[in-house]
Amino acid sequence: MAVLLNSPNDDTGEFEAWRKPLLKLDPTMDLRVWPDTGRLEDIEYTLCWLPKPGDLKRYPNLKVIFNLGAGVDRLMADRTLPADVPVCRLVDEGLTAGMTEYVVWQALYLHRSGPRLIEQQRKKLWKPFIYPVAKDRRIGMLGLGVLGGDAGEKLSYLGFDVAGWSRTPKHVEGVKSYHGPEQLGAFLARTEILVCLLPLTPDTTGIVDSKLLAQLPKGATLINPGRGAHVVDADLIAALDSGHIDHAVLDVFHTEPLATDHPFWSHPRVTLTPHVASMTQPETAAPVILENMRRHKAGKPLLNEVDRKRGY
Amino acid sequence: MAVLLNSPNDDTGEFEAWRKPLLKLDPTMDLRVWPDTGRLEDIEYTLCWLPKPGDLKRYPNLKVIFNLGAGVDRLMADRTLPADVPVCRLVDEGLTAGMTEYVVWQALYLHRSGPRLIEQQRKKLWKPFIYPVAKDRRIGMLGLGVLGGDAGEKLSYLGFDVAGWSRTPKHVEGVKSYHGPEQLGAFLARTEILVCLLPLTPDTTGIVDSKLLAQLPKGATLINPGRGAHVVDADLIAALDSGHIDHAVLDVFHTEPLATDHPFWSHPRVTLTPHVASMTQPETAAPVILENMRRHKAGKPLLNEVDRKRGY
Repeated sequence: MAVLLNSPNDDTGEFEAWRKPLLKLDPTMDLRVWPDTGRLEDIEYTLCWLPKPGDLKRYPNLKVIFNLGAGVDRLMADRTLPADVPVCRLVDEGLTAGMTEYVVWQALYLHRSGPRLIEQQRKKLWKPFIYPVAKDRRIGMLGLGVLGGDAGEKLSYLGFDVAGWSRTPKHVEGVKSYHGPEQLGAFLARTEILVCLLPLTPDTTGIVDSKLLAQLPKGATLINPGRGAHVVDADLIAALDSGHIDHAVLDVFHTEPLATDHPFWSHPRVTLTPHVASMTQPETAAPVILENMRRHKAGKPLLNEVDRKRGY
Repeated sequence: MAVLLNSPNDDTGEFEAWRKPLLKLDPTMDLRVWPDTGRLEDIEYTLCWLPKPGDLKRYPNLKVIFNLGAGVDRLMADRTLPADVPVCRLVDEGLTAGMTEYVVWQALYLHRSGPRLIEQQRKKLWKPFIYPVAKDRRIGMLGLGVLGGDAGEKLSYLGFDVAGWSRTPKHVEGVKSYHGPEQLGAFLARTEILVCLLPLTPDTTGIVDSKLLAQLPKGATLINPGRGAHVVDADLIAALDSGHIDHAVLDVFHTEPLATDHPFWSHPRVTLTPHVASMTQPETAAPVILENMRRHKAGKPLLNEVDRKRGY
């Protein structure tokens, strides 16, 4: 029985970052690193991030697929994925904390008119202005899962008026919950800063389109640290150009790296970061994966197992 | 008996913002607005922000001076201030919350290498990089009073490793306390992001000088939403030029508005905001002032009374 680290696009030495905490927790682990799989029959668990499409059907004794990130959209897009092998999303407190940092940072940046302050410095213009107090600033979390829920709770703790929307009703401390298609309009109408942290599924692909943006109040802003495919780029650019959307903070894109001729790079109403909102932290994630392996061996239900039908 | 609103430099219509909440809380208040004082003998309380030097000695029956801000440094600099009239600083939850927003925002900006991300966008450079988790980022609050304490507590809640330094020992939830001149060195040596929220007194004027900056680790950053006179500008610029200090976020300056030829405006390692970190909010501050007037009339000790000797 062996464990395969499967992340062929690794270009940051990420494998080494995983090896240490995994072997510290289980020194007996037979840990192999793709493409050095050894006998394919040995592999029972795989820890993967963007594996080669088709690769995961090669292991006849594969028991569980552990995704090394919160979003499984690209894994689910592989039509050859073995249908009877459970897939687990990664719920990692390090990833959650990093995402919350990013969302709180960017929400404060938009709340306090950061783009205007940067422009004023560039022009050497001393022009103080007032801003609403946090309790009068309405933030809306589009997606109220582990990531959206944690960021929403922290923003509420800082005094903001936070609501969230998700497919099903959720209870998050300090966050007003909206759910289902029929409550999306009311949620959007009260949102000044919209944060997209939905899972990417066929239902949510392109959800941030001209129709959705038009339901936000004039001058609203957007933060997207979810997935690039949530947004219809041309619709967002039109809304920014018209001023209906005052500013967008974008961390993720349809194609990454973003092409240098994409209009987002130099749009005055866009702040762009290169998919750095949050990263899985092997130190905090390894124990979660080991716990799930123990549960699997003991025949207990897996944590954070993906519902293959709903797609997350 | 009358109350005088005394803020001759008002150019933002601030008087009107005070009138409404004060009269709502006490409709019988005889509220006068400088320079229309009426009989000088009538004035028993004054609410002031940067009154004309010498003005406050004109009122023979003045009982309490209420400063409409947290910092009383400019008031204390008036040598003609009546020595026997108590002065109260303003502790306003709106001002505190605004300052905490600013400090949390700028600390996250520096923690997540915001200046580098802005520069990368300008160059259309897609270059993700990793960052330490919050618990490995050491923030130091220089000044652990109402403002420094609240911001420190919120940063600790977000997971940062926060310490604070003040004249006397303080207890703030989640914040390691250093105090007195003999512990300043140890505090600086462990600080990666230094936040200056000291009161401005003769002891703290110019405290952020080359000697202090040299005690921070190489690559440390500075946030100054306190007072411009805390910083020796030439020393900070030298430390930025050498790279010992990686970046400074400055909201306050020796002279405001900052002269357009000041090197801070265009220094690549400086982010500059025009004294907007926080503002007194009349809605939340008026009840605090009214409560203090009640206490004074009842012969009870005043809240937030300034120790004229220590200067805050």
